[in-house]
Amino acid sequence: MATFTALDVSDVRFPTSQSLDGSDAMNKDPDYSAAYLELRTSDGRSGASLVFTIGRGNDVQAEAIRVLAPHLLCRDVDEVLDDLGAAGAAMTEDSQLRWLGPEKGVMQMAIGAVVNALWDLRCQREGKPLWRVLAELDPEELLDLVDFRYLEDALTREEAREILEAAVPGRAERIARLEATGYPAYTTTPGWLGYSDEKLERLLGEARDQGFDMVKLKVGEDIEDDLRRFAIARRVLGEDFPIATDANQRWGVDEAVAAIDALRPADPYWIEEPTSPDDVLGHAAIRRRIAPVRVATGEHVHNRIMFKQLLQADAVDVVQIDATRVGGIHENLAILLLAAKFGTPVCPHAGGVGLCEMVQHLAMADFVAISGTMEGRRIEYVDHLHEHFVEPVRISGGAYVAPRGPGIGARMHPDTIAQYRFPDGPVWKEPAA
Amino acid sequence: MATFTALDVSDVRFPTSQSLDGSDAMNKDPDYSAAYLELRTSDGRSGASLVFTIGRGNDVQAEAIRVLAPHLLCRDVDEVLDDLGAAGAAMTEDSQLRWLGPEKGVMQMAIGAVVNALWDLRCQREGKPLWRVLAELDPEELLDLVDFRYLEDALTREEAREILEAAVPGRAERIARLEATGYPAYTTTPGWLGYSDEKLERLLGEARDQGFDMVKLKVGEDIEDDLRRFAIARRVLGEDFPIATDANQRWGVDEAVAAIDALRPADPYWIEEPTSPDDVLGHAAIRRRIAPVRVATGEHVHNRIMFKQLLQADAVDVVQIDATRVGGIHENLAILLLAAKFGTPVCPHAGGVGLCEMVQHLAMADFVAISGTMEGRRIEYVDHLHEHFVEPVRISGGAYVAPRGPGIGARMHPDTIAQYRFPDGPVWKEPAA
Repeated sequence: MATFTALDVSDVRFPTSQSLDGSDAMNKDPDYSAAYLELRTSDGRSGASLVFTIGRGNDVQAEAIRVLAPHLLCRDVDEVLDDLGAAGAAMTEDSQLRWLGPEKGVMQMAIGAVVNALWDLRCQREGKPLWRVLAELDPEELLDLVDFRYLEDALTREEAREILEAAVPGRAERIARLEATGYPAYTTTPGWLGYSDEKLERLLGEARDQGFDMVKLKVGEDIEDDLRRFAIARRVLGEDFPIATDANQRWGVDEAVAAIDALRPADPYWIEEPTSPDDVLGHAAIRRRIAPVRVATGEHVHNRIMFKQLLQADAVDVVQIDATRVGGIHENLAILLLAAKFGTPVCPHAGGVGLCEMVQHLAMADFVAISGTMEGRRIEYVDHLHEHFVEPVRISGGAYVAPRGPGIGARMHPDTIAQYRFPDGPVWKEPAA
Repeated sequence: MATFTALDVSDVRFPTSQSLDGSDAMNKDPDYSAAYLELRTSDGRSGASLVFTIGRGNDVQAEAIRVLAPHLLCRDVDEVLDDLGAAGAAMTEDSQLRWLGPEKGVMQMAIGAVVNALWDLRCQREGKPLWRVLAELDPEELLDLVDFRYLEDALTREEAREILEAAVPGRAERIARLEATGYPAYTTTPGWLGYSDEKLERLLGEARDQGFDMVKLKVGEDIEDDLRRFAIARRVLGEDFPIATDANQRWGVDEAVAAIDALRPADPYWIEEPTSPDDVLGHAAIRRRIAPVRVATGEHVHNRIMFKQLLQADAVDVVQIDATRVGGIHENLAILLLAAKFGTPVCPHAGGVGLCEMVQHLAMADFVAISGTMEGRRIEYVDHLHEHFVEPVRISGGAYVAPRGPGIGARMHPDTIAQYRFPDGPVWKEPAA
């Protein structure tokens, strides 16, 4: 019998603030980081996952993952992997740890890391990528992963079953389509606020040439700058090319409406995070007042209960799930089911460290087994840090290529961890190097 | 010039799970705990504060406080204390740490601990209790403490100024009244779910005899048990005595309505936390369907943006602030101002470790300088663990006696920290002792 022997957590940080990669109106100088988990078993295997952060506090996130160890250490691996819904629920319902959220922030992301590492282990054993393992589960098995507590006024288990059963026919064709043409992507690589106009212009041209059919610009620091950068983008890409914008929570309600009114002549495809991710009613008010400009949010929305309300309140046109913000794959399945119920497209947040590698699996599983469609959907793509992953994301013709290797996509090269470990890795001990 | 020299954080835990003090429908076996902060200065002073937790994870909370050290170490104490609004905002706006929330969970509570310790230091220097320091600030000084970002669709700085200025006349009389008669309290001491019927009956009689004019019962585990315990309370206290109930987030929307309908013949004064603290729209739906039973919530509501929405959505009859859940005194001032704007009474959550000692100051400052009223307001009281504090709360005739000693109320006896420090204090090394 194999048992869990260790939760090894590493504080891995990349000094991205030196190049202003990832800079936006609220995040001036991120050092993209990962609280990286390897969940080890007595038969010499491991499941890998991570929580993405942007630097300081990555040590707190790592510590939060470590305190979950008693939920797994010494337990039978088979027994845990056979009922992953129960394993996740036991952590969410740990009554003492629950006080630190509940179901939000550092502890919720830590639970997500452990749930995801368990799935990585399961996928390694089955020799399949996560999207495929999920897409091949029976509806009932998928339902057993979802915590319906606090959701039933919007989505009952029975309604979720109907959604999943309706998607069973056609799974095989959709898998074939995914493997043939991939899942559409859009790119944020050109649009960081800290880049010069020249760099913006060059990167926009490259994005178009690579086959992306949507890009995103960061906005919200200064409206004149935003309009100038938008004009560059329109000149490079043309009048009809979809250009999304992202304010990264910069505004209050009235400020958001005024700013979007000023941007409106440039025809933004959506405005992302116009205000606090907690402000459901604020998003709803903004959306009513800026229609037909779309409202998108989700990368900082902390759990399924908040997504439920965003949908109930008609507050969003686009749901943006994130691979490591919520309580892992299980909570993201709940959010995908909610979005399917409300008929709202999901365009996952990615970028960061490993987010592209991880979230593509959720979008692909959604296409095969939940919503059954890619209509109005694209996965964000940012061209950063992929070289550190054992199964780096692959983009072809502006689309994510369906991964074939086993796992959830989060496994890093051992050498990366040794080099970038904070504060004792060579990159941090010798910052001039 | 005095400077900040250390943030000493201790993991202090009390083995309350052995007696089932604090047991409710979601928290079966809490070990009441504090991530206890002493913020030291080069002139030998310190500010003390804490974050209350219920056991496991208290170490994560302590670590989150420690990572805030760079915001204060080596800085001039006078300069920081002269602009506490700026000191708090700098931590909230730390763009890398913000990713771990934003403004929620472990990191937000950590910021609250540091803000509160700074206030303790300031109160120690002025030789006054916090409630009095706050109550004597000019309206403009109070406004400078509040972060109005994301609030202005419900409360502008100008509207907050009007509230504060309207309360300036009469401050002296209200201070005199507070010092003469205290602030009304209600007690939760009798009502924990883990207590026997005999213990419940005895404690209810004692509460009445001590002069409390409201009590609270935990409910939500089993409706038959709830009704039996409610019948005991009605027999002891009579038909007209206000008896609040607390479900500690047990239910979804429909379950809550059904349960409250079942409890309705016993005439509950309010139902507290009927569902997830994140579910603004759920609270609003429950409130519409159970009227005239009041809905109360707040002890797990993570920031001012959520309280804003609870008020905007007509989702609560009673706002329950907590001394250590949000980003400290500054964010609680924002919440008190929001409640005053909407005319909703605030009945603070207390109990735990040091929550009574701390939150009484906020209620008293509200009475003197913000809402100007105690109408419909009572501070929760639980008879636990007060002996560990240098300035323990005092109750007389069912009311909190206005504190006269300097500080915010959180300072523990050094001996308590030595005894209960986890895992190396004698209480934890020798659990049989």
